[in-house]
Amino acid sequence: MDQGLARRWLGTALAQARAGLAEGGIPIGAALYGADGTLLGQGNNRRVQDGDPSLHAETAAFRAAGRQRSYRGTTMVTTLSPCWYCSGLVRQFGIGRVVIGEAVTFSGGHEWLAEHGVEIVLLDDPECVALMRDFVARHPDLWNEDIGE
Amino acid sequence: MDQGLARRWLGTALAQARAGLAEGGIPIGAALYGADGTLLGQGNNRRVQDGDPSLHAETAAFRAAGRQRSYRGTTMVTTLSPCWYCSGLVRQFGIGRVVIGEAVTFSGGHEWLAEHGVEIVLLDDPECVALMRDFVARHPDLWNEDIGE
Repeated sequence: MDQGLARRWLGTALAQARAGLAEGGIPIGAALYGADGTLLGQGNNRRVQDGDPSLHAETAAFRAAGRQRSYRGTTMVTTLSPCWYCSGLVRQFGIGRVVIGEAVTFSGGHEWLAEHGVEIVLLDDPECVALMRDFVARHPDLWNEDIGE
Repeated sequence: MDQGLARRWLGTALAQARAGLAEGGIPIGAALYGADGTLLGQGNNRRVQDGDPSLHAETAAFRAAGRQRSYRGTTMVTTLSPCWYCSGLVRQFGIGRVVIGEAVTFSGGHEWLAEHGVEIVLLDDPECVALMRDFVARHPDLWNEDIGE
């Protein structure tokens, strides 16, 4: 896909990550875009703010998008490589593409998704890396809880 | 594991599935049990009732259990073989065992989970099969939407 568009969409997810951090949360954000470029939903990790372990950034964005008859042609944009839970979401619902801010601080299931036909756009964004690196250094307990380690 | 215990735990998930059906929802229920046999959370599919596509039965039970520091030794009990989304949840959080009511009407990621060290107890329960078979026959549209097909 066009890298400029991918970076603009990543900006939406990054704004969500920053908003989560400002609330004391884990700074991961995501957005789901439709095939026509419409923003269907966006969200951030809600473990700390809502005490809800089921809302990773990707599942929060998916939830915010509400019921959709099909995810054909949609793109999940996330500041961080999706964990198995969120990778499973992408595969089950046939989300066609995942734009990822970074996979340096955590590498999830994006290679598995690529093997199953999902287009992966990995951006290696320095702000995404810095957000997670700083957070994990300050709150390793929260981060390990969030990924079940 | 003890088959009597597995069937008793499946009863909790089945009660959730029946409750979901009574509300007009997709009749899939789940429960998360702790290593000591404590019921940590239970729930059912919320697509119809809450308009929430992110709450499959397993993720609803996981959510209801709230934040847990570790899922070591826990068991996810579900009336139906877990889809990729819910299988990813189990793998990511290190849930050790999955008790499954049936995998006849839908076969998800339980073999993948077994390959990755998760204990799978498949019960082939006739009531679970009947609930799904009847529902899918009456509402194929809802069921296909719920699994992204």
